[in-house]
Amino acid sequence: MRSQDVRLLSVGTVLPGQPLDIATLARRFGLGVSWEQWVEAFVGTGTRYLSFDLDSGEVRQSLADLGETAAARAVAAAGIGPDAVDLMVMGTSSPDALMPATVNLIADRLGIDGIPTYQLQSGCSGAVQALDVARQMLLAGRHRTALVIGAETVSKHVDLDVDPRRLAADQMASMVMFGDGAGAAVLSTQPGADGPVLLETFVQLAGLGRPPGHTVEWFGLRDRHGDGPGGSEDYKAIEESVPVLAAEILQALLDELGWKETDVDYLLPPQLSGRMTARIAEQLPAPAAYEISCVAETANTGNALPFFQLERLLPRMMEGERAIGIAVESSKWIKAGFALER
Amino acid sequence: MRSQDVRLLSVGTVLPGQPLDIATLARRFGLGVSWEQWVEAFVGTGTRYLSFDLDSGEVRQSLADLGETAAARAVAAAGIGPDAVDLMVMGTSSPDALMPATVNLIADRLGIDGIPTYQLQSGCSGAVQALDVARQMLLAGRHRTALVIGAETVSKHVDLDVDPRRLAADQMASMVMFGDGAGAAVLSTQPGADGPVLLETFVQLAGLGRPPGHTVEWFGLRDRHGDGPGGSEDYKAIEESVPVLAAEILQALLDELGWKETDVDYLLPPQLSGRMTARIAEQLPAPAAYEISCVAETANTGNALPFFQLERLLPRMMEGERAIGIAVESSKWIKAGFALER
Repeated sequence: MRSQDVRLLSVGTVLPGQPLDIATLARRFGLGVSWEQWVEAFVGTGTRYLSFDLDSGEVRQSLADLGETAAARAVAAAGIGPDAVDLMVMGTSSPDALMPATVNLIADRLGIDGIPTYQLQSGCSGAVQALDVARQMLLAGRHRTALVIGAETVSKHVDLDVDPRRLAADQMASMVMFGDGAGAAVLSTQPGADGPVLLETFVQLAGLGRPPGHTVEWFGLRDRHGDGPGGSEDYKAIEESVPVLAAEILQALLDELGWKETDVDYLLPPQLSGRMTARIAEQLPAPAAYEISCVAETANTGNALPFFQLERLLPRMMEGERAIGIAVESSKWIKAGFALER
Repeated sequence: MRSQDVRLLSVGTVLPGQPLDIATLARRFGLGVSWEQWVEAFVGTGTRYLSFDLDSGEVRQSLADLGETAAARAVAAAGIGPDAVDLMVMGTSSPDALMPATVNLIADRLGIDGIPTYQLQSGCSGAVQALDVARQMLLAGRHRTALVIGAETVSKHVDLDVDPRRLAADQMASMVMFGDGAGAAVLSTQPGADGPVLLETFVQLAGLGRPPGHTVEWFGLRDRHGDGPGGSEDYKAIEESVPVLAAEILQALLDELGWKETDVDYLLPPQLSGRMTARIAEQLPAPAAYEISCVAETANTGNALPFFQLERLLPRMMEGERAIGIAVESSKWIKAGFALER
């Protein structure tokens, strides 16, 4: 064992409230059975979790609340105390405030102080970005044990006053595809640490000259009274590009590691929606790999998603087994992935 | 020379439009001479730059515009092409959108692709955070040349419809303390690279149990129609805490490097406002150091500020000379600093 090995010690996750199925959403927004069938056929995401009450609109959990719970669970599962954490890196697209960064509020609640904390503004590649920054900083040697967090409260973008029958198909899809949640992991180079080695992390901007496939606005004091949409998704571009980019990420990781397609025991494909993930996974050449997906149950929780996959992977992974995770950010198109070996 | 030395090759900066002095602001908002005297006495920031037109409200430059200009200037000043950049790290508290991260739009405009890009959500310690992440990633060895950017368009928070005579003193101070701007630097471990060595970067959360001194809200679709303030500053806490934290940062860097107070040739103190920076610098024990401050002319440009100081430092610094830079983030209280040696 090299002392420089970065090991994944533990994972913790949380989903707020109760699972909301399609029938519940249909009732809440006065939509019928044909809408339910449309969601089932074209999105295929059965349940999602929201951090506010769907009837009253009352916010039940903030991003800091979700991040704190996931982080506390990961720290506890690692069998360490918060004082052993000497680096924190968080990824999110939906911070509670622009300042302070939510990662610092989470640190405070866990009793963590006196260490560097970083919050990446990122989308679906954010968990891998956070894992990459933490891994590189651990490899640089100044730190030993990193707490990595990915969390979203995308429900901040849900407008409860909207009449969904007047939404365009892409806005309708966004309404049912995304959900709130948080995940966290502990990485360590501490000698004797137990867990698979995070052999590789891969992040690569891949959008030169291409328009963004996904935008999310924020509203400053000067323009928050405007009535423009809160963002946009180009599902056609996403459907076309993500399978191609996912295959490129897999190949780049295999090349980097000198692995063959048949060496991959577990594949964690990008989690966009139940339907899209199934299509992407089908097209990825990893014939021997067991697929670990969660999006049909968790919904697309952005920066949190890979932690839900890692949580399912960790107890399964046996000595000598290998896993590859893939994430694609459609905002300005980012390829991201990682490799684990036990 | 160790091959692992991370050198500061170049710096580029930009300020939008024309300098706005206190008399101009007083005229714009119908305020009198006594207000001008109050700003002069208690804030002491002579000029600031805004990326929108003060009369029409028209936005002239986005964060991406400012960041692109500063980054292009830094890359040109380093005597390299954009293709030599293999890592980008940006810090900002005022992104143009939540997605895509602005760093990716800047990369795109510079023709940069196929590399990892990171955007930190951060305040006044953000430039040092970005320098730290870039430096640690360079030290880990995967990358050779990093483009580091700090940029702000804080004017997004300026409400032109407000009657400033109805503002509380802290809101009035915020109105004149902050400004827009961007800075960038190129760091490299490339053998033969010329420039001072970035010997140390220091980032430490220091807010355990303390309320934030500075908050900036963001408004999602669900709450952007509300009328709450866009943020808050606790200037009393800031005035009390920043000098103490600044002295602790200086001491931590001296201890880490084995330097004495008299070894510091240049001191780059925290840039809050003209008055506050003067007071902080007075209290810092670095008797031989030449102070490099810019806030009275640039205003507080948050994540961009240390780049304006570095731009003034770089041409002055002679062989064998040493510099220490200090930044304090009052949001959830972060200590940050760096050390350079030529």
